[in-house]
Amino acid sequence: MECPIARSLERVGEWWSMLILRDAINGVTRFDAFEASLKIAPNMLTRRLRTLVEDGLLERRLYKERPKRYEYVLTDRGRDFFPVILALLDYGNRHFAPEGEALQIVDLDTGRTLDPVLVDRATGEPLAGKRLKLAPGPAASAAMCERYAEKHEASAPAPRRVKR
Amino acid sequence: MECPIARSLERVGEWWSMLILRDAINGVTRFDAFEASLKIAPNMLTRRLRTLVEDGLLERRLYKERPKRYEYVLTDRGRDFFPVILALLDYGNRHFAPEGEALQIVDLDTGRTLDPVLVDRATGEPLAGKRLKLAPGPAASAAMCERYAEKHEASAPAPRRVKR
Repeated sequence: MECPIARSLERVGEWWSMLILRDAINGVTRFDAFEASLKIAPNMLTRRLRTLVEDGLLERRLYKERPKRYEYVLTDRGRDFFPVILALLDYGNRHFAPEGEALQIVDLDTGRTLDPVLVDRATGEPLAGKRLKLAPGPAASAAMCERYAEKHEASAPAPRRVKR
Repeated sequence: MECPIARSLERVGEWWSMLILRDAINGVTRFDAFEASLKIAPNMLTRRLRTLVEDGLLERRLYKERPKRYEYVLTDRGRDFFPVILALLDYGNRHFAPEGEALQIVDLDTGRTLDPVLVDRATGEPLAGKRLKLAPGPAASAAMCERYAEKHEASAPAPRRVKR
């Protein structure tokens, strides 16, 4: 696969739903267009689209009465998933594209290529540079709290293990 | 599943590899610990770990001689995947956690909860607020260029379709 997003996902998970959302970023809405882009079996595409509609990322809309034809339009929840896709794209470009970038993110208003980086909203500091951990939040169950109460060491960034 | 990352992936893709990486963020390295955390069949875990090692996200290291025991340690490439995981976590928290946040990202140095946002490195502007598209980069094949040469409309943010 040439797409850097697909390259990431090829290694790090399943990917049809994410590729549907990738195409949706560029305005693809119709079954035939998804099918042509993804080279996916129709029954598989139907299933994935249905799931994305059920989960509220896409909305199914009638666009033609005779015969009845539907398109699949991003909802706010679907658009909100873009950061994940864009982070996957960036990761693929940096790690699985030795020949260079085959796909980039372009700002439609300025024409500039965008370089995504995940930062903390409050400070603007990149999360990649921080020593961080995942920890139970206010809605965590007792089991969740117990699980995360075990001693964990920070793993980002290197060096991973600090002697105390 | 309670974990917001799992909730996102449950809806948007396959997820064992990403959950392994999630645990790796908190310093999990050993087979037994991954197995206990993920409640995953051993053969499935073996397969996923092997793939992550082959793809350079984890490194397999001997930590005990008799009997031989290995641990799976994040590489730079593995750590570099954190933004995707953290974006997935944030997405799950915002969209699939009606009861509140069960898992958060904590800065180990300050103890603060971090709020991830994907921005453009050059300007610091959130990508979520931009009209953007994916476009072929310098290493794109002819087929890739042709595919993206079709008229695409921007889909972020709403309104999606602008009359001209």
